Amino acid sequence: MVADMQPTRDVAIERVDGATRSTTRDSVVVEAPLQLRARGTPVATIMRTPGADLELVRGLLHAEGISGGAAAQIDEDAVDIDVAADAFAGRGLLSSAACGVCGRVAIADLELRAREVAADTRLSASVLATLPATLRDAQSVFAATGGLHGAGLFTIEGALVAAREDVGRHNAVDKLVGWALEARVDASKHVLVLSGRAGYELVQKAIMVGVPIVASVSAPSSLAIELAERFNVALVGFVREGRGNVYAHGWRIA
Amino acid sequence: MVADMQPTRDVAIERVDGATRSTTRDSVVVEAPLQLRARGTPVATIMRTPGADLELVRGLLHAEGISGGAAAQIDEDAVDIDVAADAFAGRGLLSSAACGVCGRVAIADLELRAREVAADTRLSASVLATLPATLRDAQSVFAATGGLHGAGLFTIEGALVAAREDVGRHNAVDKLVGWALEARVDASKHVLVLSGRAGYELVQKAIMVGVPIVASVSAPSSLAIELAERFNVALVGFVREGRGNVYAHGWRIA
Repeated sequence: MVADMQPTRDVAIERVDGATRSTTRDSVVVEAPLQLRARGTPVATIMRTPGADLELVRGLLHAEGISGGAAAQIDEDAVDIDVAADAFAGRGLLSSAACGVCGRVAIADLELRAREVAADTRLSASVLATLPATLRDAQSVFAATGGLHGAGLFTIEGALVAAREDVGRHNAVDKLVGWALEARVDASKHVLVLSGRAGYELVQKAIMVGVPIVASVSAPSSLAIELAERFNVALVGFVREGRGNVYAHGWRIA
Repeated sequence: MVADMQPTRDVAIERVDGATRSTTRDSVVVEAPLQLRARGTPVATIMRTPGADLELVRGLLHAEGISGGAAAQIDEDAVDIDVAADAFAGRGLLSSAACGVCGRVAIADLELRAREVAADTRLSASVLATLPATLRDAQSVFAATGGLHGAGLFTIEGALVAAREDVGRHNAVDKLVGWALEARVDASKHVLVLSGRAGYELVQKAIMVGVPIVASVSAPSSLAIELAERFNVALVGFVREGRGNVYAHGWRIA
């Protein structure tokens, strides 16, 4: 067991409730990379919540049909497996089965690929409060099935510009971004609203396209917060019933 | 545009409500593979809900930093991109950024890797109704953060054997399966309970380890239902407040 990595982390947040703002602390789930090595050779990186890392690796190898040798925890972010590295050859599968992002790309590489969002865009708290309901109304398939993730792009006046749905959270955002690129929308003046949790890779996609404000109806991960903080993006979670928790760049929420 | 593929599909279900059972129909979200080809060469397969496929591909290429040429829809499950195939070289990333499963592996291969669950295991509807609350009580980190997916393994008497949590749905199940393999638990006598939606890859993981009954508090996808049907697994969704929708192998719910 590695004692340093905890599944949750305390962060400072601003709580927005109608016209009231207060500074408090919140507990967020940790999302951190675990590198898999095959007899020392890095073969994949999984984004996961720390804890039960060896069980995770064992379950993953089983799902992938790799008859593994023993797995050993090297440190808090690496596990070594006693199997030849070529057992992983050609498996985009391995990393993809485990997480929404990563492959063989380390976190540092992902950060290098993203650009800081320079725009000075701000959003009023009163407009923010209206966004999730507008997105929900636009999610026609969700209404029928209860089974879809939604992503919406809004103006800072609160108008819905486009919404996309998919069984996969990443796909909903990719569809929306693909539309925005095609339509030559200036993402830097818009807000991305997510119907689900704000994981790292969704915030990364927002940064890649230059969206300065990401709002989610649910919880963010630790890594999503770190990325938003670093790349000048406001990240708001639990946007419900006129309230919200601001996890990064609260100056954008006016 | 391809007209054949719809984002939802109507399926026959059994609705269980206390001691009452009725046959009805339900609308479920479609989850289906989209193959990406680079000038004709297959380079990745994405699991997605049909619709806005070209936007999806464009957004995905952008997120991956692949400066793509034009994308064209070949048929309902393939898109061709005007870019050299080697732009995708070494990218487990591409498929993983888009979905929870797949890589370069086609759906047929995934089915071949899974085994039919032979055990005759059944679960009473009254026990089924108790499972989500028990799992929720065991999710300590979720209670703190609201940000975690949970997976629990139960006996058919309704006793929780083990529960695992993670920011990633697949990880929670992989951790649980890894534990079960280590503990040499006979999965064929157990029930897998999911705190979130029942996507295809989670049902596949259940099949791979031989769990005969999968229960989710939320919606299943079309592909999850097909897989459960084919591999002799009972799939129950929306297990809430004493009710549930049985999507496959209702004979296992007694």
